[in-house]
Amino acid sequence: MKPTTVGVIGAGRIGRMHVQNLVHSVPEAFVKVVASRSIDASWADELGVPLAVRDFEVILGDPEIEAVAIALSSDLHVEAICRAARAGKHIFCEKPVAFSPGPIREALAAVQEAGVQLQVGFNRRFDPSLLKLQQAVRDGAVGELQGLRIINRDPQAPDIEFVQRSGGLFFDFTIHDFDTVRFLSGMEISEVHAIGTTLVDPEIGAAGDIDTAVIAIRLANGALGSIDNSRESGYGYDQRFEAFGAQGNLAVDNVRPTTLSSSLESGVFVDGPASPFVERYREAFIAELRAFVRSVRSGEPVAATGEDALAAIQAAQAATLSRRENRPVELAEIDQQVSVGVSS
Amino acid sequence: MKPTTVGVIGAGRIGRMHVQNLVHSVPEAFVKVVASRSIDASWADELGVPLAVRDFEVILGDPEIEAVAIALSSDLHVEAICRAARAGKHIFCEKPVAFSPGPIREALAAVQEAGVQLQVGFNRRFDPSLLKLQQAVRDGAVGELQGLRIINRDPQAPDIEFVQRSGGLFFDFTIHDFDTVRFLSGMEISEVHAIGTTLVDPEIGAAGDIDTAVIAIRLANGALGSIDNSRESGYGYDQRFEAFGAQGNLAVDNVRPTTLSSSLESGVFVDGPASPFVERYREAFIAELRAFVRSVRSGEPVAATGEDALAAIQAAQAATLSRRENRPVELAEIDQQVSVGVSS
Amino acid sequence: MKPTTVGVIGAGRIGRMHVQNLVHSVPEAFVKVVASRSIDASWADELGVPLAVRDFEVILGDPEIEAVAIALSSDLHVEAICRAARAGKHIFCEKPVAFSPGPIREALAAVQEAGVQLQVGFNRRFDPSLLKLQQAVRDGAVGELQGLRIINRDPQAPDIEFVQRSGGLFFDFTIHDFDTVRFLSGMEISEVHAIGTTLVDPEIGAAGDIDTAVIAIRLANGALGSIDNSRESGYGYDQRFEAFGAQGNLAVDNVRPTTLSSSLESGVFVDGPASPFVERYREAFIAELRAFVRSVRSGEPVAATGEDALAAIQAAQAATLSRRENRPVELAEIDQQVSVGVSS
Amino acid sequence: MKPTTVGVIGAGRIGRMHVQNLVHSVPEAFVKVVASRSIDASWADELGVPLAVRDFEVILGDPEIEAVAIALSSDLHVEAICRAARAGKHIFCEKPVAFSPGPIREALAAVQEAGVQLQVGFNRRFDPSLLKLQQAVRDGAVGELQGLRIINRDPQAPDIEFVQRSGGLFFDFTIHDFDTVRFLSGMEISEVHAIGTTLVDPEIGAAGDIDTAVIAIRLANGALGSIDNSRESGYGYDQRFEAFGAQGNLAVDNVRPTTLSSSLESGVFVDGPASPFVERYREAFIAELRAFVRSVRSGEPVAATGEDALAAIQAAQAATLSRRENRPVELAEIDQQVSVGVSS
Repeated sequence: MKPTTVGVIGAGRIGRMHVQNLVHSVPEAFVKVVASRSIDASWADELGVPLAVRDFEVILGDPEIEAVAIALSSDLHVEAICRAARAGKHIFCEKPVAFSPGPIREALAAVQEAGVQLQVGFNRRFDPSLLKLQQAVRDGAVGELQGLRIINRDPQAPDIEFVQRSGGLFFDFTIHDFDTVRFLSGMEISEVHAIGTTLVDPEIGAAGDIDTAVIAIRLANGALGSIDNSRESGYGYDQRFEAFGAQGNLAVDNVRPTTLSSSLESGVFVDGPASPFVERYREAFIAELRAFVRSVRSGEPVAATGEDALAAIQAAQAATLSRRENRPVELAEIDQQVSVGVSS
Repeated sequence: MKPTTVGVIGAGRIGRMHVQNLVHSVPEAFVKVVASRSIDASWADELGVPLAVRDFEVILGDPEIEAVAIALSSDLHVEAICRAARAGKHIFCEKPVAFSPGPIREALAAVQEAGVQLQVGFNRRFDPSLLKLQQAVRDGAVGELQGLRIINRDPQAPDIEFVQRSGGLFFDFTIHDFDTVRFLSGMEISEVHAIGTTLVDPEIGAAGDIDTAVIAIRLANGALGSIDNSRESGYGYDQRFEAFGAQGNLAVDNVRPTTLSSSLESGVFVDGPASPFVERYREAFIAELRAFVRSVRSGEPVAATGEDALAAIQAAQAATLSRRENRPVELAEIDQQVSVGVSS
Repeated sequence: MKPTTVGVIGAGRIGRMHVQNLVHSVPEAFVKVVASRSIDASWADELGVPLAVRDFEVILGDPEIEAVAIALSSDLHVEAICRAARAGKHIFCEKPVAFSPGPIREALAAVQEAGVQLQVGFNRRFDPSLLKLQQAVRDGAVGELQGLRIINRDPQAPDIEFVQRSGGLFFDFTIHDFDTVRFLSGMEISEVHAIGTTLVDPEIGAAGDIDTAVIAIRLANGALGSIDNSRESGYGYDQRFEAFGAQGNLAVDNVRPTTLSSSLESGVFVDGPASPFVERYREAFIAELRAFVRSVRSGEPVAATGEDALAAIQAAQAATLSRRENRPVELAEIDQQVSVGVSS
Repeated sequence: MKPTTVGVIGAGRIGRMHVQNLVHSVPEAFVKVVASRSIDASWADELGVPLAVRDFEVILGDPEIEAVAIALSSDLHVEAICRAARAGKHIFCEKPVAFSPGPIREALAAVQEAGVQLQVGFNRRFDPSLLKLQQAVRDGAVGELQGLRIINRDPQAPDIEFVQRSGGLFFDFTIHDFDTVRFLSGMEISEVHAIGTTLVDPEIGAAGDIDTAVIAIRLANGALGSIDNSRESGYGYDQRFEAFGAQGNLAVDNVRPTTLSSSLESGVFVDGPASPFVERYREAFIAELRAFVRSVRSGEPVAATGEDALAAIQAAQAATLSRRENRPVELAEIDQQVSVGVSS
């Protein structure tokens, strides 16, 4: 069966990873063109990608290309989505789609009008451990959900230039946690109270951002939750998730690169968490592209929609407002939420 | 060397446990009298306690008795402390000492005037795992403290009569967590934001209390924290503690009764958490009495003071106000805190 | 109810531990006399033991004393058992009872003739984890037993004087493993093949002993097993046990003093195994004395019999012969085994 | 850079896995031809393999093909190696190369004469956990090696036809363990004593084979070891490895598919071992092909040589003899070992 022809827009760190994953691990896809301002043609060539261009119009204008993967800087996502949709391409787009609901809605409208698929890069939804946790919650393994807990800490703070362009901790980093709360619970967030501070790097504070946060959450069914964030753990990429219910607790622990333990006089040592995120979620990054290509080919709904992106951004907005005013903020206050349900 | 003669006031579940621990596991103590309205004299006799009485004045009037352990219902603690202090007895008292700062201050004044020792029953301060965690924080094992996390869930909700007399979740249950935050961090809590609800038992809600809570915390140094409470886990007594710092994370996991794991076709099974609290903290309950008797004999400061009790109650008050008004509450708002430092 | 009056014979490291455990943790027992050549009377006095003597005839001649605990050096055990039995005392005796079957049979005969109880100090039979493992095997949790694995390593090699008096690795150390194989499986060992060497301390080799061994085992039902021994692990007292059956595997892991884990840049650190043996088996050492006193009072059979001691010694003999001749040795070759069944 | 052109000989379960791994995960290789008696041409086509043939002479005769991967039934390996070597192809060959040293030597001679590379399919040598364990041993992390322990149990017994063709447990299954002992220790096995029986399936016994074994081992430096095998665990593919030394113990535990743990009233449940072997060693199967192609391109020595295959077969022979005669067998008795050193 003929593979789906794909173009990749953006060839930074994430864009290049997507190209490699599509080439090596998604047999149903063929990457025909990579577009990037700073593309290295020989890199594409070695991967067997026939064409490397600077202008992604080449991709949009190619009638053979059915789908695009967008991994530009976040402020360019909406325009790229709109243009790709108008060109009739199915779209995979990295998160965050945008930093506010308005542009996301604009992108969603373009996608809807064009009748194309849009999948957002919430990679955690494709992690085997998180999928199993979500399935167990949905199957009622712990009864009615009463609580959710997420610990999400990056190994090392990003450089200050990245922080300045990132949209802030809640939009760039916690966004994954807001989506994970919705994904694992199958419910909307109804209220957030976010406290945050700068404990890692004073430059981050000087840039108007925070690097450490605790966010208390209420879900639609009354369950409570917390998210614990840090830009720098010092010991690796800490990714832990718990769902607590009337009949038990489900916990996803960190993945470790090896299962070696060393018993020495000073104690027993095991590996720290798999790091950085491209290692921890290696399988998930592949699985999300496979799922996208499968949806493109089958017409089946994607597992991480534009509406999911919208809901996560609204939670980030609520958290931002909550922290600024040091008060709980209901999501209803942010925006008239499109009640689309949580995709899964 | 002559043992320290002790009287125990109150012989409910906890009081009887203290008598047994003093008799079997604190060789430096001799329990001469147990006082309780409902005392079973043969029970005392079998333990080798010479005298069982109904009125604790017998204890206070006995010049041989140097120290008392008080395990009455909480509303009787302050009066008992004051009378014991005036009788010149050193005092071990169960938590909570009282439900508001005023009476605690009254008790502290009586203790100070009498020049006796007062140790409060914050048993977790004597748990080997928590002691090691606290020591590591103090030794700077993870650098400057940035966060604290506590999960505290009881195996099963208490009956509604207990709930009605308990003073409420924050005063009866979270009180341990507030003290643990102070103990592990060596710092005062500066702000709390508590959200809570009734997910376990609607009767608890009808009684004006909650059974599920998430409390976000700020510490004096700017570190953030969270406490996660439930009156009923369904899987045992969940007791987990984490301290996160600039250079790492320290975590105390649940204790399990055995180390047996069973690998079967359906998966690998291990024991749930040691439950209930008298099992989980068995060693700690013994160690706190040993330490108390040691302090009585040596004159050295106790490791869980009346001031610690006061600080924990103030945090519980702040949490109560916070939840009622759904807003963050600074501890300074509650009371002019006596800045005595955290004992350790 | 009146406690059972006990005399303790021998006050070395183990004897003193038994006295402390009886005094502090076995309420049904009263230690009236301790006999030891090198007894410190003030030590006994502080524990509330009324009498400390040099000659254990004082104990045997005291009509109030119903039971004795013997913790002499191993070569004196049989004589002490025989004399205690003739004096009509119930007997708890440390392992090994003797270094060959003949003297053990002599002791068993004396015990039988006197109609007293004899319990042998196979402490592991009272460990909560091992008890749970044994119960699971017996309940058929993993179906028909197919294999057993034991890792038993001491933290540090004993001094050479101890080694010289110990009877050798198989009699002093592996003896526990031979008993544990029988206890966990509920079956007799039918064949052993032992290989051993000196890797820890050449002095141990010079003394004619070994410090490292692997022993392959066949059980009566055809199941296979292995025992892995070292006199010195370098990382604590390694105590691991597995039972493998047609439907799964049961494993008892090391006990750790605390549940603290430290996640640092260099990895994740947890406690090494609880060490030394008095720490690891603290509960078991208490439980075996409680069980002994209970058997004395109730007349119910003890859980570690003289026949168990005999069977373990025969396995040690077989292992010794096997290693010397580097060939498998059937237990039937050693001795006409008294088929008494494994007590449990 | 031009990829290395490869032909794959044999397209059974393992052969097809190698083709997929080469196509998807070894960018430096291009699979031009697959040869198999029962090849499905459309399967090859979908993977992008241009040619599927029945006779592997097509591969040997194609001058563009530099290297072959052989995954025939074991009795055809030696002939295929010899013919491929004579055709000047570098060779990756599945284990076992043959069931006795003679044919392996023949193959090695052909390889040496042709001056081509030969890598044997000891996949475990490429597992991240085992590599880290081996590196730690070599780096002296636990001092001088004193012991090795391997548990190797298949999830389910193979069908009886497979058993009949397999060469027996020691040649088909334990062969990996013999190689792993050498790989982890960096030393030759000097003596084995194998005991084995039929506990899983009486048909295996009727076919003259065993399904359960314990093998005690001596290494060249005097260290001791044990291997524990079963054809059927009932709970997954049990793969555990330990190296014990003068200063500690290194242990590789099972890999689990997810890190989910479920705390319920009945206990805490986690995933069983990753199974079957293609899942457990997924990364290793890819890494061994990558390493092979790298060696082909660079001329650097392979990490699993024909000499390693020879040594493992000799250990299997020694174990067979040992079990048959129920006595320890020195490797020197089997064959004049070519002392080539253990590759790593």
